[in-house]
Amino acid sequence: MGISLGANQYGKAETRVVRIYRDTARHDIVDLNVSTSLRGDFSAAHTAGDQSGVLPTDTQKNTAFAYAKSRGVASPEDYAIALGTRFLAASPKAASAQVRIEQYAWDRIEVGGAGHDHAFTRRGGPVRTAVVTVSGRGADRTVKVVAGLKDLALLKSTGSEFKGFLKDRYTTLPETDDRILATSLVARWRYGGASGVDWNKAYDTVQATLLEAFATRYSRALQESLYLMGRAVLETCEQVAEISFAAPNSHHNLVDLSPFGIENNGEVFHAADRPYGLIEASVVRD
Amino acid sequence: MGISLGANQYGKAETRVVRIYRDTARHDIVDLNVSTSLRGDFSAAHTAGDQSGVLPTDTQKNTAFAYAKSRGVASPEDYAIALGTRFLAASPKAASAQVRIEQYAWDRIEVGGAGHDHAFTRRGGPVRTAVVTVSGRGADRTVKVVAGLKDLALLKSTGSEFKGFLKDRYTTLPETDDRILATSLVARWRYGGASGVDWNKAYDTVQATLLEAFATRYSRALQESLYLMGRAVLETCEQVAEISFAAPNSHHNLVDLSPFGIENNGEVFHAADRPYGLIEASVVRD
Amino acid sequence: MGISLGANQYGKAETRVVRIYRDTARHDIVDLNVSTSLRGDFSAAHTAGDQSGVLPTDTQKNTAFAYAKSRGVASPEDYAIALGTRFLAASPKAASAQVRIEQYAWDRIEVGGAGHDHAFTRRGGPVRTAVVTVSGRGADRTVKVVAGLKDLALLKSTGSEFKGFLKDRYTTLPETDDRILATSLVARWRYGGASGVDWNKAYDTVQATLLEAFATRYSRALQESLYLMGRAVLETCEQVAEISFAAPNSHHNLVDLSPFGIENNGEVFHAADRPYGLIEASVVRD
Amino acid sequence: MGISLGANQYGKAETRVVRIYRDTARHDIVDLNVSTSLRGDFSAAHTAGDQSGVLPTDTQKNTAFAYAKSRGVASPEDYAIALGTRFLAASPKAASAQVRIEQYAWDRIEVGGAGHDHAFTRRGGPVRTAVVTVSGRGADRTVKVVAGLKDLALLKSTGSEFKGFLKDRYTTLPETDDRILATSLVARWRYGGASGVDWNKAYDTVQATLLEAFATRYSRALQESLYLMGRAVLETCEQVAEISFAAPNSHHNLVDLSPFGIENNGEVFHAADRPYGLIEASVVRD
Repeated sequence: MGISLGANQYGKAETRVVRIYRDTARHDIVDLNVSTSLRGDFSAAHTAGDQSGVLPTDTQKNTAFAYAKSRGVASPEDYAIALGTRFLAASPKAASAQVRIEQYAWDRIEVGGAGHDHAFTRRGGPVRTAVVTVSGRGADRTVKVVAGLKDLALLKSTGSEFKGFLKDRYTTLPETDDRILATSLVARWRYGGASGVDWNKAYDTVQATLLEAFATRYSRALQESLYLMGRAVLETCEQVAEISFAAPNSHHNLVDLSPFGIENNGEVFHAADRPYGLIEASVVRD
Repeated sequence: MGISLGANQYGKAETRVVRIYRDTARHDIVDLNVSTSLRGDFSAAHTAGDQSGVLPTDTQKNTAFAYAKSRGVASPEDYAIALGTRFLAASPKAASAQVRIEQYAWDRIEVGGAGHDHAFTRRGGPVRTAVVTVSGRGADRTVKVVAGLKDLALLKSTGSEFKGFLKDRYTTLPETDDRILATSLVARWRYGGASGVDWNKAYDTVQATLLEAFATRYSRALQESLYLMGRAVLETCEQVAEISFAAPNSHHNLVDLSPFGIENNGEVFHAADRPYGLIEASVVRD
Repeated sequence: MGISLGANQYGKAETRVVRIYRDTARHDIVDLNVSTSLRGDFSAAHTAGDQSGVLPTDTQKNTAFAYAKSRGVASPEDYAIALGTRFLAASPKAASAQVRIEQYAWDRIEVGGAGHDHAFTRRGGPVRTAVVTVSGRGADRTVKVVAGLKDLALLKSTGSEFKGFLKDRYTTLPETDDRILATSLVARWRYGGASGVDWNKAYDTVQATLLEAFATRYSRALQESLYLMGRAVLETCEQVAEISFAAPNSHHNLVDLSPFGIENNGEVFHAADRPYGLIEASVVRD
Repeated sequence: MGISLGANQYGKAETRVVRIYRDTARHDIVDLNVSTSLRGDFSAAHTAGDQSGVLPTDTQKNTAFAYAKSRGVASPEDYAIALGTRFLAASPKAASAQVRIEQYAWDRIEVGGAGHDHAFTRRGGPVRTAVVTVSGRGADRTVKVVAGLKDLALLKSTGSEFKGFLKDRYTTLPETDDRILATSLVARWRYGGASGVDWNKAYDTVQATLLEAFATRYSRALQESLYLMGRAVLETCEQVAEISFAAPNSHHNLVDLSPFGIENNGEVFHAADRPYGLIEASVVRD
């Protein structure tokens, strides 16, 4: 019985690339966290210490910086496709390259009612993500694009119930007709193809659709909310083939104020850190 | 030579209080992280294990929840003053009570161009802070209010220089006429008094003033920017007696792309994590 | 073209279970972070808001606490197998249950050269992990056990090179015969079966084997080190069928002290946060 | 009424200095996080943008690296004193320099029962700290040394009570004769002088004294434990003039298992994240 190398990949993680567009006095800023990795036949590096097929992670970092200038960053997806294609061209042993990006949004600072030309404040709120996998070269090249967002904190102060659930001997949770529903959403959606998509517009549409579906649909469980949000995205955005969610159920526990002679009709809650429910679901186009 | 108890205080830290106002269908949410502490003559608890003068931190937590309902949270400052006053009433051994609050802002989710009644998304961006110290009781009561914000990420893509500095044998930094200036600002400002201040309005004014001063004033160093921002606040807000800053200089290092035949005229930067400059300064009304 | 529910699972994450064994005056402590999740036919909860098949995550949490007492925690693996089996018994719709555990080690405080009976200090260093998946019931039950560790910080101050690598136009990294090699290792190993394994002993053996292989084997790349470490584990521990690693290459950059007339022969380094190399590899028994 | 600059300081924070001693085949590693800052008359930099008196934070960083080689790091305190003295020599406007250090401990990896020459694993457990303030120059130089530790997690599974406390209308906490007492200690101690102290030995003595006092002394409150620990340090270490603590009371809540017909006699606890008690106290030599 032998021992051998299994699945493997390598790359440079979390290169913090900031690209300023300053062709006019009105600057733009693109703020990225870029991670890249290569898969392929890198067994010699592992089993024989032979690096001749290994494009250093330092080179991957350099390329990320160079491409931010030479190719620009029209969108994280466009930039990632260019980077992934480059890595396959430069690295004969690689079968595929993956580029993972987080983008942090900055707003212009308002001065006198208008956005300033070169002064910005970071927006906060959700981080935009993109994971692009480029496989093959030339005519055989295929590109898989998964866009997403994370840290989208959502809360409904009513319009959420949880009842009628399965009970066993360890069940103590009371049923409720009205509770706070809160989460910090991670969503990832795969596009059906990589051509003809306006990545920035599609991102905005998906985010707005998620927010509206969360807000307007009554929730009988976080599971149902996620499903309805996913359906809404697939119905609204033809280019999206699949969307998946990871959503903590951020428990807001009603505080018992009765010992102090105070009624608490859904007004005062303790926001707990841990444990939290964790609901994961995907919605797919058949 | 003897050994004795020195300065001491105790309290409950980081109680996560969420208050929903639901008197009408249009809910409001106040999301707080509340820390409280008492100072006074608590030597018996330390040196003799005698808790008879110690109001438990658990009681402090309960009071924070109860007051969120019974007193409400018009502003973190008002709420903190009420809490601090209560702790002194309940705890004869305490000479002063401090209440420290972080407030997380939530925006209504937009649906059809209007904010939803009961669905919210957390805003991100700066966290509002308040530190209130109540000392004495009744006619002897004094209240000190220090408002603030933290995690306000600011960046100027031009309009910042750093040159003419002191050099010694360990200096290698080149002078620059144009750089990125970026920080994640912590600001704290003390109000001259605790009566007659519209805390929420004052907060908004200070934040807007800080942003505008950062944006519009040329910077010869982060030190100068902070001073100008502080001056602007004191000039704009009569109620503010003093403002202090802690500001990391979040270095954005220009990437050398010349090995790749690419010119980099202030367009591609590496955002470094550590080390960072740390500039601390206060501006005071004489 | 239709839209339907895809892969999904739900559970309770990060329940912090602390179990004290106090049958004698010499206490023992087991400190766990427990996450559980169920997979199966939960489509009704998503698409129809029907919770009748959903065992609440709150019940999962309760069970984790109850089993810590009634079944005890001989090892995280034993405890996880019991929990997973229980969840399948209690939840007819579930096809499988996964229990993920982190264990934090505590040492007895030394007093007079001996470990104290009931006073402990947390050890620090690597966190022990276990991921157990129970599928099926009764005779059809199968159990998959993946043990692991994370946050194992390792560093070699010599005995590491990186040279002979592939170069392209974006390569600037110099080759080196001697460098610091440092990582914060994540390792996960799958046992060939779930019966007859002394989980605690096996964990100790794997950890010791990883440490020794890292220390004693010359490194021509982090890839080679991981492969050698994985081989050593498979050679030493017959019960391990496969081991996988995620290892950041925590760059320690030699500081150029020549501007100050100081030679730096591998003595002073800057430990960088980001970016970092990220090497992932598995070693398998054929 | 005028506006003027108040208290201010500036410096470089969190320079990650790793010093390898490799004069023999048996290497040693010193792993530091170094922050430096200067106070003095830096008003011109703030109010007039004049940097001529400002030694750049980049230079402070360079000096930290250079001194790690040229002066070495016998202890964080020795190194910090050398650095602070240098900064005052190089910076005429500075009245004082503060150097703050965190040190991360590494252990030799055991191979065949002996520690390896050049392979290490990070110890975990408490981080050693030092804050050194150098004021004045030459004969007027004074040095204040505050050593410390943080992240020292301690837990007693019995030998702790909390009862007899003050009650008001918001008190619901039951009294207890037996509970878990747990904290993650921050301790800082000031030495009476800066000469003639063996810093490393003194640190070890203080840490061991804190651990033993925590373990062996019955606790009627965390306040009493801290006081007893502080007393023990002052009684044991003549060179320590004062010690202060910040200690979260990391609540371990007994889980109610009675709904499941299970008795829980101090065996199963939920370790809560927030809120936590926060006890701060100092013990001083008169």
